[in-house]
Amino acid sequence: MPKRDLRELLRLPAGGSVDLAAHDPAATPGAPGGKTAVLADAERMGGELAGLQERLWAAGTAGDRRRVLLVLQGMDTSGKGGTVKHVIGHLNPSGCRIRAFKAPTAEELRHDFLWRVRRALPEPGEIGIFDRSHYEDVLVARVRQLVPPAAVGGRYGRINDFERALAEDGVTVVKCFLHLSYEEQRRRLLRRLDRPDKRWKFAPSDIDERALWPAYQEAYELALEHCATPPWYVVPADHKWYRNWAVGRLLLEHLRELDPEYPRFPFDLAECRERLLRET
Amino acid sequence: MPKRDLRELLRLPAGGSVDLAAHDPAATPGAPGGKTAVLADAERMGGELAGLQERLWAAGTAGDRRRVLLVLQGMDTSGKGGTVKHVIGHLNPSGCRIRAFKAPTAEELRHDFLWRVRRALPEPGEIGIFDRSHYEDVLVARVRQLVPPAAVGGRYGRINDFERALAEDGVTVVKCFLHLSYEEQRRRLLRRLDRPDKRWKFAPSDIDERALWPAYQEAYELALEHCATPPWYVVPADHKWYRNWAVGRLLLEHLRELDPEYPRFPFDLAECRERLLRET
Repeated sequence: MPKRDLRELLRLPAGGSVDLAAHDPAATPGAPGGKTAVLADAERMGGELAGLQERLWAAGTAGDRRRVLLVLQGMDTSGKGGTVKHVIGHLNPSGCRIRAFKAPTAEELRHDFLWRVRRALPEPGEIGIFDRSHYEDVLVARVRQLVPPAAVGGRYGRINDFERALAEDGVTVVKCFLHLSYEEQRRRLLRRLDRPDKRWKFAPSDIDERALWPAYQEAYELALEHCATPPWYVVPADHKWYRNWAVGRLLLEHLRELDPEYPRFPFDLAECRERLLRET
Repeated sequence: MPKRDLRELLRLPAGGSVDLAAHDPAATPGAPGGKTAVLADAERMGGELAGLQERLWAAGTAGDRRRVLLVLQGMDTSGKGGTVKHVIGHLNPSGCRIRAFKAPTAEELRHDFLWRVRRALPEPGEIGIFDRSHYEDVLVARVRQLVPPAAVGGRYGRINDFERALAEDGVTVVKCFLHLSYEEQRRRLLRRLDRPDKRWKFAPSDIDERALWPAYQEAYELALEHCATPPWYVVPADHKWYRNWAVGRLLLEHLRELDPEYPRFPFDLAECRERLLRET
């Protein structure tokens, strides 16, 4: 376990300008050692995460409206899906609400950009996980000019209002940017091509997107800068073992702080037990 | 691995009357041995399940509309939630659509009983998991007389039409009744009371429901009888290790039969690789 809170190490300070180039995608801040130690620590975290999730859920059944929403953003192959799989591995999936956002459908496009996001929010007691999110509407929308620049500009404020309202409603939003290097993305795309069982994930359009790398990094910098409350965590993602551990750990620290409690048992325990034993 | 298909062993034949008392909730049909052997076999299944799910998903991205819907029904404490957690443990949760149905909300009650179910269906390539389902509308609805008996009677046909339409649309529905004994339920409820971290799951109304055990068994028998296509599997559920293994195994056998295929790679592989390597 790291001595310092991992949130402190990965959190982007609000108010400053963001320079992603200053963050090393291959770094492992706060890690309790190398790969072996990190994997072992991730394993150990599992039980505590599961316990905290159950308490959150239990509290939810008794009127506690609090919940958590983990937002995962990052370039192609940065491992959003892999992180979901890893984090869920520690949790009870019945208490999770997972949503992967793709290019908007025709129906979604007829609504405001936050419409589909609102419909996918976790209920009280749940842990929500977004694989991509409303941030796509200021990322790909900006880079690909899917809407006029002024419209993108207006969305930062809309997102801030939205996230402030979520906080007021008891939703802890944990925003993780999975920070991948350009070179590591090349290696991962080549690996996809080399493996017959992974090749289906690949399309030449991935290379076209990759050619827009600088524009995407800039779009991310603007998004992280303009929407800094709640804070973004920049999670170095070149090492999958670190990325998985770090996101699990950030979730753990937030849940510890929420410290949800099992509701008080409002019935007569002895009488319940006796009724159960009495009946034939 | 059992020599015979587990589906043959657990499937209720269509057309006959159903007598749940003739099924032993503590039996372990088709198990490759005792608890240790079954746990090891469940572990082994994991890789194959994950591989088949990935192929199903990949095929879905290329226009294959097929998907699977696992429906879990059973009395309180029969382990629907535990089974979801176990099955999901083998799968990539991003390709799953899990839904736990509770008592209908005011909005859900304003619609037809199948409305909320249709909204929770898996998309092509996905595996859907229902913890409770539209069958509640012929189970608790019948026992608690939430609707007039004639209305319940009409629902069996509605469910059959609905499930036939699903089959025609490429949805393989795998219906599992987790068959628990009255005595084992007592033990599990007592254990909930004894554990401070499980007590919150308990309410005296659980004992009231339990008092209606014979009426519920009868309602299940009628539902299983009237809605026998696709078939129901009666999964003995007194042993959690058997229950988890059996549901995983049923899912595996269905996926094997679907035998989804990775889509053909429609691009020039050498050219893609070269483009990736060329760019600086």
